[in-house]
Amino acid sequence: MVAKIHFDGRSSKAAQLRQMITSPELEFLLEAHNGISARIAEEAGFKGIWASGLALSAQFGVRDNNEASWTQVVDMLEFMADITHIPILLDGDTGYGNFNNMRRLVHKLEQRGIAGVCIEDKLFPKTNSFIGGERQPLAEIDEFCGKIKAGKDCQRDEDFCIIARVEALIAGWEVDEAVRRAGAYHEAGADAILIHSKRSQPDEILAFIDRWENRAPVVIAPTKYYSTPTDVFRRAGVSMVIWANHQIRSAVQAMQASARRIYRDQSLLEVEDTIAPMDEIFRLQGAEELRAAERRYSKSPRAETAAIVLG
Amino acid sequence: MVAKIHFDGRSSKAAQLRQMITSPELEFLLEAHNGISARIAEEAGFKGIWASGLALSAQFGVRDNNEASWTQVVDMLEFMADITHIPILLDGDTGYGNFNNMRRLVHKLEQRGIAGVCIEDKLFPKTNSFIGGERQPLAEIDEFCGKIKAGKDCQRDEDFCIIARVEALIAGWEVDEAVRRAGAYHEAGADAILIHSKRSQPDEILAFIDRWENRAPVVIAPTKYYSTPTDVFRRAGVSMVIWANHQIRSAVQAMQASARRIYRDQSLLEVEDTIAPMDEIFRLQGAEELRAAERRYSKSPRAETAAIVLG
Amino acid sequence: MVAKIHFDGRSSKAAQLRQMITSPELEFLLEAHNGISARIAEEAGFKGIWASGLALSAQFGVRDNNEASWTQVVDMLEFMADITHIPILLDGDTGYGNFNNMRRLVHKLEQRGIAGVCIEDKLFPKTNSFIGGERQPLAEIDEFCGKIKAGKDCQRDEDFCIIARVEALIAGWEVDEAVRRAGAYHEAGADAILIHSKRSQPDEILAFIDRWENRAPVVIAPTKYYSTPTDVFRRAGVSMVIWANHQIRSAVQAMQASARRIYRDQSLLEVEDTIAPMDEIFRLQGAEELRAAERRYSKSPRAETAAIVLG
Amino acid sequence: MVAKIHFDGRSSKAAQLRQMITSPELEFLLEAHNGISARIAEEAGFKGIWASGLALSAQFGVRDNNEASWTQVVDMLEFMADITHIPILLDGDTGYGNFNNMRRLVHKLEQRGIAGVCIEDKLFPKTNSFIGGERQPLAEIDEFCGKIKAGKDCQRDEDFCIIARVEALIAGWEVDEAVRRAGAYHEAGADAILIHSKRSQPDEILAFIDRWENRAPVVIAPTKYYSTPTDVFRRAGVSMVIWANHQIRSAVQAMQASARRIYRDQSLLEVEDTIAPMDEIFRLQGAEELRAAERRYSKSPRAETAAIVLG
Repeated sequence: MVAKIHFDGRSSKAAQLRQMITSPELEFLLEAHNGISARIAEEAGFKGIWASGLALSAQFGVRDNNEASWTQVVDMLEFMADITHIPILLDGDTGYGNFNNMRRLVHKLEQRGIAGVCIEDKLFPKTNSFIGGERQPLAEIDEFCGKIKAGKDCQRDEDFCIIARVEALIAGWEVDEAVRRAGAYHEAGADAILIHSKRSQPDEILAFIDRWENRAPVVIAPTKYYSTPTDVFRRAGVSMVIWANHQIRSAVQAMQASARRIYRDQSLLEVEDTIAPMDEIFRLQGAEELRAAERRYSKSPRAETAAIVLG
Repeated sequence: MVAKIHFDGRSSKAAQLRQMITSPELEFLLEAHNGISARIAEEAGFKGIWASGLALSAQFGVRDNNEASWTQVVDMLEFMADITHIPILLDGDTGYGNFNNMRRLVHKLEQRGIAGVCIEDKLFPKTNSFIGGERQPLAEIDEFCGKIKAGKDCQRDEDFCIIARVEALIAGWEVDEAVRRAGAYHEAGADAILIHSKRSQPDEILAFIDRWENRAPVVIAPTKYYSTPTDVFRRAGVSMVIWANHQIRSAVQAMQASARRIYRDQSLLEVEDTIAPMDEIFRLQGAEELRAAERRYSKSPRAETAAIVLG
Repeated sequence: MVAKIHFDGRSSKAAQLRQMITSPELEFLLEAHNGISARIAEEAGFKGIWASGLALSAQFGVRDNNEASWTQVVDMLEFMADITHIPILLDGDTGYGNFNNMRRLVHKLEQRGIAGVCIEDKLFPKTNSFIGGERQPLAEIDEFCGKIKAGKDCQRDEDFCIIARVEALIAGWEVDEAVRRAGAYHEAGADAILIHSKRSQPDEILAFIDRWENRAPVVIAPTKYYSTPTDVFRRAGVSMVIWANHQIRSAVQAMQASARRIYRDQSLLEVEDTIAPMDEIFRLQGAEELRAAERRYSKSPRAETAAIVLG
Repeated sequence: MVAKIHFDGRSSKAAQLRQMITSPELEFLLEAHNGISARIAEEAGFKGIWASGLALSAQFGVRDNNEASWTQVVDMLEFMADITHIPILLDGDTGYGNFNNMRRLVHKLEQRGIAGVCIEDKLFPKTNSFIGGERQPLAEIDEFCGKIKAGKDCQRDEDFCIIARVEALIAGWEVDEAVRRAGAYHEAGADAILIHSKRSQPDEILAFIDRWENRAPVVIAPTKYYSTPTDVFRRAGVSMVIWANHQIRSAVQAMQASARRIYRDQSLLEVEDTIAPMDEIFRLQGAEELRAAERRYSKSPRAETAAIVLG
């Protein structure tokens, strides 16, 4: 195993994520889907990021049905990890295939500095939970446990987290089935259980937690039951809450409003003061660091060259 | 040359862009930087898209200094072109190298359905126009003309547009130099001239247009002189206006506001109604088309399988 | 539909492949797995190329079990298509997912100038036919036909070919099952049937052909039964023979021999005359074209610059 | 800095490369250009690999003039590093841009497990040394030193190697200029000097070494002066010899011979026994490991499913 202490004295990102999951505090992840939204999440104060499959697909302009390849997703994750100092948990669909694809995924995620992956017990290629209404079949338990084991066995940083997302409630099964599956996944090595529900009330979630008896940390994503006060989750012993898609939805709303306004007005006047200034974009990109580096590594060759080229 | 009429009866995207440039009307492009912002631009009514180098870099979370490779840019352009029906004009930096890189770029852009590319007469690797204050050297005219010629000679669709962006005013040179360069670029084959200024008033731009005498279509990007009424440009005979970075700036503003609010509140309650609903994201991704296709090509195998797997 | 005539007067690559499949002549494809092997196949006289999944995986150094993502495969195909003028038929596994992934694949292949794709009726993720001995389950016929239909419906060039590879014999089923499947696939729109066998004698293949009664063109890949005289296939009415993995195997043999020899000798002396000279590599890369283009587009800027930089 | 000891008890690849450069022994690198050639180099006994820019370009089927983007090169390097246990030294052109691109390159190489990079003091975009005859201008010394410094300052593993390739002799300058440049590069932080010559005799190289007085390790690539006995280099105190392009040239020779023969014969008979058997390809890909993993992580779901699907 590699050392847990990163070269800059901070804990590794994986260790940070593990700490979030195992601490007694209720922790929060915010969705991000590209480099700039990842940085914004960190600057807002969040201690971790949810790399949502839905939001990543949406920003590409494709559907969340494995239309973007897993390496296209990993390429974007790399940009996200490069610009942030907080852990990123990937919403990794079903692991993009079987146990072997899962091993490869874990290897590539660790290499890019991603702290963990959450895989779900759906069939592959998958359908998004919230599209379509009928009951859906789930992965065979043994096969899914094989994926978890394979992932855990091949991770190099012992803190890398593999979280099992139980889709039983989404797919129309009872709490019993969800608990049965969560138990099997935990025994196979899952570091936490993400229990998912599509109801607008958290009753299923709370029933699951009650039955689960804290065998492993529980993670939730209250997209549908968002009106439940957060203290309800805190008291129930939830370990981590994922705000799963709220940056992409914020961006879409704002871009639609600006685009329509600019189109109608044929002018920026009404929009200019409602959007981030150029300097804020440059700041987020790290322009200052590059200016400093230019002073260090480049002896203003441009000024010198100018005389030659244009003199 | 390939036929101009697209298989679905529409003009090719390149032909649409050429029409925008050559028409007597003042036309508008809106910046987009990923698939979903491209679709939003189209839905707002815009007839074309500006794939801004700055905005593309920003969404990746890198600086606009060739930190993302040219193929990483092309990969994102492909997602943008796939989800839209309107032409995309790439802000192609300096062509990412010499005349040979330019040929390769044009070939790859045509292949992805991009309608045109705008290249600028800066040195490579480049610095963003608006960062740093000093005068900058420009590309040698002969070499830049060689790039334009090489690009024009290798395009397969005769409507593909190559626009030359004159950076003379930005770099601190006089209007004379800008006109001299624009003339050379036009003679080398450029389909239009993008004249750029960093002043808050359009005086330089108007002086250029006056001196240019309409030898080729003129394109502008009034990022700095946005308060000038659009009719001023229309009367001056500008061919196309680019709103060059306003979707990324809208997205950043909105994501920052949401992220801070959610972080502070530990709740979605105050944010939920100010952002796009989930269904709007699904709609933008084209969920409906997939549902229809599933009915056509897939005999609800999931329902059948369910009984087997979980029965 | 787009025009069949390519801009340079040649038939499109897809039309060339269709012609090969439908002509009364026995035609041949040679495996290639990267740009240079594709060019070598063309220069040797072959009229078409088999982009073998096994060979593509092998050159990457991964297994033929979807370890490389489908976009990584497509990226390499693009290099292969760019350097050749003959059609490439992709060995497209199972289409990399369901009917929807197949649609996306066809779109991306057409965009890159690939002439056709062969998909097989195995389960996904797949195992290579020749690894492991036991009988394997196959794709459900309806689902596989849905994939074929979806692919055919979305192709833009009417000549793009979709070939169905019947794995029934490989998986241990009888000729009856193979014929039944081939019939269904053909009715779903497959342009040809690739019938595969792992025996060292062509008896199964010939039995299939006999039973098939020429309902659609038949393609074979005699990797195992290579000792059968080609005239046997010609007389049987086979449409196209694929030499499926012989360039990668040639390259491996030669590289192993050279590497061992150089290692042992600590010298190139014994190897130098047995390998292609540097000039041959440059020729294959197209160095001459670049030299000519430099004369056209670049006024020897280097000579001029030299005096400045080093004077 | 991160620990030097890899999780499996071996030295890191960068430490291995550093050891090769600094040891008193003469060491050897063999060129590789994709995953399978990298593995072959390792199996032949080589302790390190030269990821040749020329060979990488050639296998893609493009010219060695920055036609493939730097990320396309890095993607292939990743495959090469994943399948080998020995260090890879990248032939990194000019660093693909300025000091900032160099920083980004070093970061990405370390992330992929590449042990070092060699950059050359040519202009960017570059021309291959052996194409064309005239004298070429070189990079400004200060700017090139800035690149080296920037690379050294940002590497995280202290053993990562940056080697400066001096092109002065190739470009037609005297040994004096080569020594002057090598000295400056070494002071800027270069871990070794690659001195390059295009003569068929090693006189220039030996003159350089004589004048250099062992201020830093010297690396050579005797592509042109291959007939010089290796002991000449050993006695002269050369640190490392690079056999720079011999696997791609071996592969090309063999593929051309096989392709021509198969085309002419319309048969594999004469070729089959001269090429690697299928099992050797499977072995190189690591088929055995996957079979073992399947036994561990997958309870033969295929056999079970078969009855359901086909029963």
